[in-house]
Amino acid sequence: MFRDKQHLRIPGPTPVPPEVLSASARPMINHRGDEFRKLLEGVTRGLQGVFQTGNDVIVLTTSGTGGLEAAVSNLLSPGEKALVASCGAFGDRVADIARAYGVDVVKSEVEWGRANDPEDVGRLLDQNPDIKVVFVTHNETSTGVENDVRALASVARAHDALIVVDAVSSLGSANLETDAWGLDVVVTASQKGLMTPPGLAFVSVSERAWKKIESAKCPRFYFDLAKARTFAQRWENPFTPAVSLLQALRDALSIIEAEGLPSVFARHARMALAVRAGIKALGLGLLAGDACASKTVTAVTPPAGVDADEFRKFLKSNYGVILAGGQGRLKGKIFRIAHMGYTDELDMVAALAALEMGLVKKGHPVKLGSGVAALEEVLAK
Amino acid sequence: MFRDKQHLRIPGPTPVPPEVLSASARPMINHRGDEFRKLLEGVTRGLQGVFQTGNDVIVLTTSGTGGLEAAVSNLLSPGEKALVASCGAFGDRVADIARAYGVDVVKSEVEWGRANDPEDVGRLLDQNPDIKVVFVTHNETSTGVENDVRALASVARAHDALIVVDAVSSLGSANLETDAWGLDVVVTASQKGLMTPPGLAFVSVSERAWKKIESAKCPRFYFDLAKARTFAQRWENPFTPAVSLLQALRDALSIIEAEGLPSVFARHARMALAVRAGIKALGLGLLAGDACASKTVTAVTPPAGVDADEFRKFLKSNYGVILAGGQGRLKGKIFRIAHMGYTDELDMVAALAALEMGLVKKGHPVKLGSGVAALEEVLAK
Repeated sequence: MFRDKQHLRIPGPTPVPPEVLSASARPMINHRGDEFRKLLEGVTRGLQGVFQTGNDVIVLTTSGTGGLEAAVSNLLSPGEKALVASCGAFGDRVADIARAYGVDVVKSEVEWGRANDPEDVGRLLDQNPDIKVVFVTHNETSTGVENDVRALASVARAHDALIVVDAVSSLGSANLETDAWGLDVVVTASQKGLMTPPGLAFVSVSERAWKKIESAKCPRFYFDLAKARTFAQRWENPFTPAVSLLQALRDALSIIEAEGLPSVFARHARMALAVRAGIKALGLGLLAGDACASKTVTAVTPPAGVDADEFRKFLKSNYGVILAGGQGRLKGKIFRIAHMGYTDELDMVAALAALEMGLVKKGHPVKLGSGVAALEEVLAK
Repeated sequence: MFRDKQHLRIPGPTPVPPEVLSASARPMINHRGDEFRKLLEGVTRGLQGVFQTGNDVIVLTTSGTGGLEAAVSNLLSPGEKALVASCGAFGDRVADIARAYGVDVVKSEVEWGRANDPEDVGRLLDQNPDIKVVFVTHNETSTGVENDVRALASVARAHDALIVVDAVSSLGSANLETDAWGLDVVVTASQKGLMTPPGLAFVSVSERAWKKIESAKCPRFYFDLAKARTFAQRWENPFTPAVSLLQALRDALSIIEAEGLPSVFARHARMALAVRAGIKALGLGLLAGDACASKTVTAVTPPAGVDADEFRKFLKSNYGVILAGGQGRLKGKIFRIAHMGYTDELDMVAALAALEMGLVKKGHPVKLGSGVAALEEVLAK
């Protein structure tokens, strides 16, 4: 085994293509000069393609959480009511951000491993007609669940509320139609489906959302989206942006454009199906049901007697396969396999092979090759 | 002239050493794994060296302005009074951040091109004994002025107020003794003296400051320093950090450590002196007086009849020399030459040579070589 060769299968940072890494090592340029303006314009147009939107897409130098905080602080006022539909740790985080700003959070919740229920959201909006903003998670990274954003958006729309989508771990991997589905604010980050190192967040903003932003009173300065829009009109950022990550992103967006969104989405969906088939064949548990399974990350419950975190360490030191652990109330109880960004079908074969060999080595009777065979059955279709 | 060869002489992003650029292109690693923890620990220890502190140094994925916002939102409560000493655009920005959070800002101001007056700060603190936090700028990038932070800190200290220092464009270039001078919070960013691409900010926090943070009520989530400290205790960040920039920073800190802080500071001071001598020899104006001249950036007023921004464009297209323009009320009136980070004495010779050749080409009578000669006189001493 190579000391440093890694099979990085965590849901972000995802592996970055070599040419994108090289692009991130280009010399610095003046962030107030023409080259930068061309860079930001190109990257913004590329992002609009992946967001499937004609809306403004604002580039922030921050993590995904910073992008979500920008959505909260720009759209809401202290004391205002907002609905947060949560089905896991990242939905809960949005509620925590809103509460930190004094927002009165009404929460629609479900058992972890399930998707949010549009009917429950509708019921809560009926009961709280003063709610004007609804937050939903497209892909809940902590549980491996995909929500039906289209249905949730149409409920919000029917109640005259704006819909804000956390698409951090789905954009560029699973289909999300910002304009066709009427999504007002969509937030994502660089280090997941967009195959770029972490440090950038992107926020699309509809005209309806800009209108709401005008009257929203939560404090913001670094995350001020209206100021960012003013600067973006001349293809600049208000503050010194992460130039090297933008140089990398340009190349990553070219790769996505060359593959084409439909093919990118199909690849992710196929990897998810195949991994789930392999896991089932090995007799392990899947946290999320088939109907709401994530396209980008699969949460697995290990066999009884296997500590998820200890098993992850074993896979890392024996095969260089790096999986993610459980978060929040799932800590130590699950492990998660990401199939997101610069990963393909054979990367999944490798992960499953390590998994089944690891189980055998740990004394858990699975038939070697049976998980991989089931996975290949899906891929060969 | 090479199409892409640039002499980047702006005050950030500054040129990044080739080995640091290469380090930024390393493959992604798990930000919750051992390799990352070693990375963050090493980088934090290195930063403590450059900050000259034993205080916590918190790493944030954001621009320098985000680091300053963290200082404001973690230390203050809405309605609380705070003193901002400003001598330029970046001091004014801190006041704007504080006002965005509902802080009652008392401002100590001076004419742009001068340093803040510790006596005026003392007078304002006498008049406002309820002020518990004072913000000062170490190096005002917009005017090329260095403040006497030691004197300003001792005034704040005498009034039992915390002192927060914007050291974004000075840390790692000009001497700033966080512990010896009793500085409670010091903020800097990656893309200036630290020779790393932009996208990271660093905030040192004293025990006194942590105590004040406990009772401060401004909203914060992404910029929550106490939460970041909790995660830093196991060498992690609360949110996915800019892994590749941290990988780069590790190498940049090694370069600083190898040169040694005293030599780094002497190099910057010598470049500043030499550039000023060259500018004087050419008969151009210096915005800042000798007594308060910045070690990292020199603001120059062009001869009458020369538009600063038009002249900058000329230097860029003819020599690949990129200078910064004026900001705020100085827009179009000055240009700024940075001598910061990965720059040496001969880089200054090149900049001055381009400047004097440019002036002659634009029909302004200066003696070719006279600026460079004056510069060399300083360097040869």
